[in-house]
Amino acid sequence: MIRKLSDDALRAGGFIAACGILMGATGAYAASGEELQFILNTFSFLIWGVLVMWMCAGFTMLEAGSVRTKNASMICLKNIGLYSIAGITYYLIGYNLMYVDVQEGWVGTFKFLYGPSGDELKLLSGEAVIADVTKAGYATMSDWFFQMVFVATTASIVSGTLAERVNLWAFFVFTIVLTMIIYPIVGAWTWGGGWLSAMGFKDFAGSTIVHSTGGWAALAGACVVGARFGKFRSDGSVKVTPPSNVPSVTLGVFILWLGWFGFNGGSQLALSSATDAIAMSNVLVNTNLAAAAGVVAALCLSRPLLGRIDLLAILNGALAGLVSITAGPDIVDHYWALVIGAVGSALSVGGMRLLEIVKVDDIVGAIPVHLFAGIWGTLAVCIAADGNFGVQLIGVLAVGAFAFAASWLSWKVLDKMMGVRVSQSVEELGQDTAELGIEAYPEFVLMPDQDDVDQIRNNS
Amino acid sequence: MIRKLSDDALRAGGFIAACGILMGATGAYAASGEELQFILNTFSFLIWGVLVMWMCAGFTMLEAGSVRTKNASMICLKNIGLYSIAGITYYLIGYNLMYVDVQEGWVGTFKFLYGPSGDELKLLSGEAVIADVTKAGYATMSDWFFQMVFVATTASIVSGTLAERVNLWAFFVFTIVLTMIIYPIVGAWTWGGGWLSAMGFKDFAGSTIVHSTGGWAALAGACVVGARFGKFRSDGSVKVTPPSNVPSVTLGVFILWLGWFGFNGGSQLALSSATDAIAMSNVLVNTNLAAAAGVVAALCLSRPLLGRIDLLAILNGALAGLVSITAGPDIVDHYWALVIGAVGSALSVGGMRLLEIVKVDDIVGAIPVHLFAGIWGTLAVCIAADGNFGVQLIGVLAVGAFAFAASWLSWKVLDKMMGVRVSQSVEELGQDTAELGIEAYPEFVLMPDQDDVDQIRNNS
Amino acid sequence: MIRKLSDDALRAGGFIAACGILMGATGAYAASGEELQFILNTFSFLIWGVLVMWMCAGFTMLEAGSVRTKNASMICLKNIGLYSIAGITYYLIGYNLMYVDVQEGWVGTFKFLYGPSGDELKLLSGEAVIADVTKAGYATMSDWFFQMVFVATTASIVSGTLAERVNLWAFFVFTIVLTMIIYPIVGAWTWGGGWLSAMGFKDFAGSTIVHSTGGWAALAGACVVGARFGKFRSDGSVKVTPPSNVPSVTLGVFILWLGWFGFNGGSQLALSSATDAIAMSNVLVNTNLAAAAGVVAALCLSRPLLGRIDLLAILNGALAGLVSITAGPDIVDHYWALVIGAVGSALSVGGMRLLEIVKVDDIVGAIPVHLFAGIWGTLAVCIAADGNFGVQLIGVLAVGAFAFAASWLSWKVLDKMMGVRVSQSVEELGQDTAELGIEAYPEFVLMPDQDDVDQIRNNS
Repeated sequence: MIRKLSDDALRAGGFIAACGILMGATGAYAASGEELQFILNTFSFLIWGVLVMWMCAGFTMLEAGSVRTKNASMICLKNIGLYSIAGITYYLIGYNLMYVDVQEGWVGTFKFLYGPSGDELKLLSGEAVIADVTKAGYATMSDWFFQMVFVATTASIVSGTLAERVNLWAFFVFTIVLTMIIYPIVGAWTWGGGWLSAMGFKDFAGSTIVHSTGGWAALAGACVVGARFGKFRSDGSVKVTPPSNVPSVTLGVFILWLGWFGFNGGSQLALSSATDAIAMSNVLVNTNLAAAAGVVAALCLSRPLLGRIDLLAILNGALAGLVSITAGPDIVDHYWALVIGAVGSALSVGGMRLLEIVKVDDIVGAIPVHLFAGIWGTLAVCIAADGNFGVQLIGVLAVGAFAFAASWLSWKVLDKMMGVRVSQSVEELGQDTAELGIEAYPEFVLMPDQDDVDQIRNNS
Repeated sequence: MIRKLSDDALRAGGFIAACGILMGATGAYAASGEELQFILNTFSFLIWGVLVMWMCAGFTMLEAGSVRTKNASMICLKNIGLYSIAGITYYLIGYNLMYVDVQEGWVGTFKFLYGPSGDELKLLSGEAVIADVTKAGYATMSDWFFQMVFVATTASIVSGTLAERVNLWAFFVFTIVLTMIIYPIVGAWTWGGGWLSAMGFKDFAGSTIVHSTGGWAALAGACVVGARFGKFRSDGSVKVTPPSNVPSVTLGVFILWLGWFGFNGGSQLALSSATDAIAMSNVLVNTNLAAAAGVVAALCLSRPLLGRIDLLAILNGALAGLVSITAGPDIVDHYWALVIGAVGSALSVGGMRLLEIVKVDDIVGAIPVHLFAGIWGTLAVCIAADGNFGVQLIGVLAVGAFAFAASWLSWKVLDKMMGVRVSQSVEELGQDTAELGIEAYPEFVLMPDQDDVDQIRNNS
Repeated sequence: MIRKLSDDALRAGGFIAACGILMGATGAYAASGEELQFILNTFSFLIWGVLVMWMCAGFTMLEAGSVRTKNASMICLKNIGLYSIAGITYYLIGYNLMYVDVQEGWVGTFKFLYGPSGDELKLLSGEAVIADVTKAGYATMSDWFFQMVFVATTASIVSGTLAERVNLWAFFVFTIVLTMIIYPIVGAWTWGGGWLSAMGFKDFAGSTIVHSTGGWAALAGACVVGARFGKFRSDGSVKVTPPSNVPSVTLGVFILWLGWFGFNGGSQLALSSATDAIAMSNVLVNTNLAAAAGVVAALCLSRPLLGRIDLLAILNGALAGLVSITAGPDIVDHYWALVIGAVGSALSVGGMRLLEIVKVDDIVGAIPVHLFAGIWGTLAVCIAADGNFGVQLIGVLAVGAFAFAASWLSWKVLDKMMGVRVSQSVEELGQDTAELGIEAYPEFVLMPDQDDVDQIRNNS
């Protein structure tokens, strides 16, 4: 095969095919406009979807820098594993369950595999069915690709909260359940056109559908799996477990911020009109402003609330701002994005403290960032956009009840079946050495854990 | 809301709306062409702008790897903070000051906030004003987004030079001044259509406007803040402070290189004609060739000039090549890009030495890379493109005089008001522990600073 | 210059120029359609090409995390150096040799430099030659840019295998030979339209042309340069050399996965018809599924085959899946992508063991990943797509014979001329300190090499 466009390909592939133009047939013109729409919408799905995939690397770097070094390799494995599993399960069943023939019901179709439409296959094999193809608006699999990268985000949220003590295989099995069943059902109610969608529930890019669902699953997991050994001491104090690699966490946040432009921008779902282009521009601007406001709010609040300029709270503030704006990033009064992001960030800073008080061990703060800010963002649609508060609240509660209950049940069943937690000795040694037989940084001399040192000192 | 394009949306949203096409009205055709132009230009701003945002992560990784580990968290905070602040100030005031009604004068309009045009708001709320909207050529906020990410770059340059000793709050206040006033005024003279623009000053993507301005601000800061304690010894020798994490610096340079494709490519400002597409292609090719030539030049020069193959000089050579080509990346004789990049790189290698001789402490070499190569690149427009040397020189001098003076004054006022420099004890302990209460790599055993060791040895 | 689109520019630049539309000349319509095609194809080359460039950062992070810390800076230098050299040589000679006037022969034209077409230059200087320009289908230099980033990939593969003991200058000279001569000749046979192309050899994005060629060059290098001192012990055992920075390796794999969307998606070479958009969507989906299947396959196989859950084998499994699908990512039955990726991953896991048995020292496993999976992927085109097994096999063998022989010869000549290997003392000390005079992580306390410790212990 020659890696140049042949003259033939150029002529044949042209969406304003010579025949159509020169013959001046009205139908041909219309078709050519639809074909261009089709190309632009498809390309928008692909390029923004690629940026959303990049968020997986962001979660990985954020989490690998947040955990003890003795668990950093394991968190790398969990993240690349969950992205792979999510992509496969969504192909096998998930997409059909979420999007195919939902029609205001509760769930789509239980059917295996997904692929290009029949008309697309005909077109690819040379049949002249261009008009049948292009009236769909975009290539079938470009939409699948864009939706798939969203599933992976949901699963990524869980891995951060449960790091350092959840069993690898239990985590992967839960990932299968979450991405193949729980998330697609939530999605069917909403983006799939089910009952919540019929009520008028608004969630542009998934503050509730993606982020809160992931947050609820993480919270359920944290309840069942429990806190790390020694995190909450018997005297009521909390063991401080700072990130082991701050630049890695920061890089992760920058990657997520970048990917979020795809997450929210691509959720316009089209690029075929000036309206789409304007909306997409507004979405990117609001996304950036909300994140920036999240950073500044946490910068101002962390000293009064947490006693010091807390870089981690500030980094999480950026993410909380992003989650908050995700339900309604298409607002046209951009100053609201500043307000929404700042409030989301404040909730995340306060939420970190709250979780410590109720003794929920969330290593990266994923629950405050994705769940608390996600709820806030979903309700905030009523302030700046035209959301109905009652409907938004029903959406938050319904998704919350289902996602938490289904996740809790799944974790419980997994606990009975295989155990969801590593043994105390594995936890102390670290999952890297105990389960993977490697270290994340084998050539670097590392500090002994202070608690271990204290224990040895007390014993001797 | 359903996350699928409805048939209605497809029909209504189509830029070649059925009515226009089928009715065959001449006006409708023209409109549809303009709408497509509008979409492509807008999308170009957005996607390239997203890549420019990514450069912030590049500066962060470069700087976090360049500083002592004891200041790596603080540099992460400064970078995510400056990007957030720049985005907000540019929204609040900066953009209006730079672009709104400059008309060959000295500065734009002092007015708060920025947002979609009135016609865009009408279109979004359903009015049939498509022709009024699309004649603007692109969505209002897509342009804002693209310009905003450029401001952040200017501020990023300063953070690198002043790392390890500048006070956090002073740095953030300076960032506000730089992004809200200094940079927008320089921008008003040039890209905003002010007096330098009227004279014919050429600076395609900002060798002077962005990079030199940042470089001058950094130089002014270095003069006021002073060198790190112990950097320039009384015996005339210079304390070597190698990067603490070389792969992190390298990653930063790769990120910047990638982002620069958006920086220069997007500065074509349009994607609606074959001419734009060709120019954008040439721009990307020249950008890459100049950076590559910068690497190779520094690789060849570093041994004769610096006594060894100096990886840092080579990495900075890539950046100097990129800065150099930024004023005129649209040249069609690509070999000139090799020459321009190589000379810029040589200036950067030599500039590093020069700064040591004049005792200016620039931790990452941002002044040689962004200022020296930026001046060279602006003048080089006369060689390969059709710049007028006198005008280019006036631009370099005028921007230099204003940016340096305004920055120096700002730093001086800040020094009086709040102090711009941390105490010696904070500097010795590191800003991470002293000001943030964390360490960048808390689990890793680190070397004691050799100078501290020497001091202790001398004392005992 | 003003950084806003002027009204004039908007009018003049419009691809549906007022004159053409209003005059209603048939030719003008056709031209405008071709111009849009031209823009979309060009933009596709540029944006996907930018993502492929990003793969260089991926190789760098993967390799910098895989080598001993004492060689991490050197591998950073090699990678940024090879990307720069590849870009320059391909501009100087490589592209002409690969693509210009090959015409079913063996090699293109020996001619220096490459640049915009004559018609493009005329258009840029204002002549009305739009139709002559746009019939080419894309901007000349956008294609060059996209092809250039592929050359760099080939060279990146070699650096990983030979890390820690190949001489810097020998490596760079070999990079020149590879990117200026060997790869362009292989490319001329195939994508350039030479004899293999004429036979019907299929390799969509380069399983053989890019990845196997790089793999053969790496294998030849490994044979000539030899294994690291002490890697294969006299008692038949193999010294374990785990990655020094696992999160860095993981980040590298994520970057490569992201970049591969550009690698395979952009290789559709066009975006100007619904067929292109559909094919590009299918390509991205298959690329992702194959990588995901590679991860899951290695996850399942590593315990039975390697005795433990081997993160490195799993990360390489993702890459092997990506390499495998690269020859035919446009298949429409997506489940085949799962099969092809999984088999490729299995071959890579097994290949790692095989290389140890035959005592080939490949630090990152580049040969199993790029060569073994590349061969498999090229042959697999016969299963899922409509490749001819005989022709595919001839392609694999011919490219293998030529790339290996030419590389082996080059390495041998280099060995005679300048030596391809560092001295044993440099190897023990590490290339960073010995040749660059820096350390990658100078502030971190590092473990002494266990073998050195053993040796000292034995001596005392």
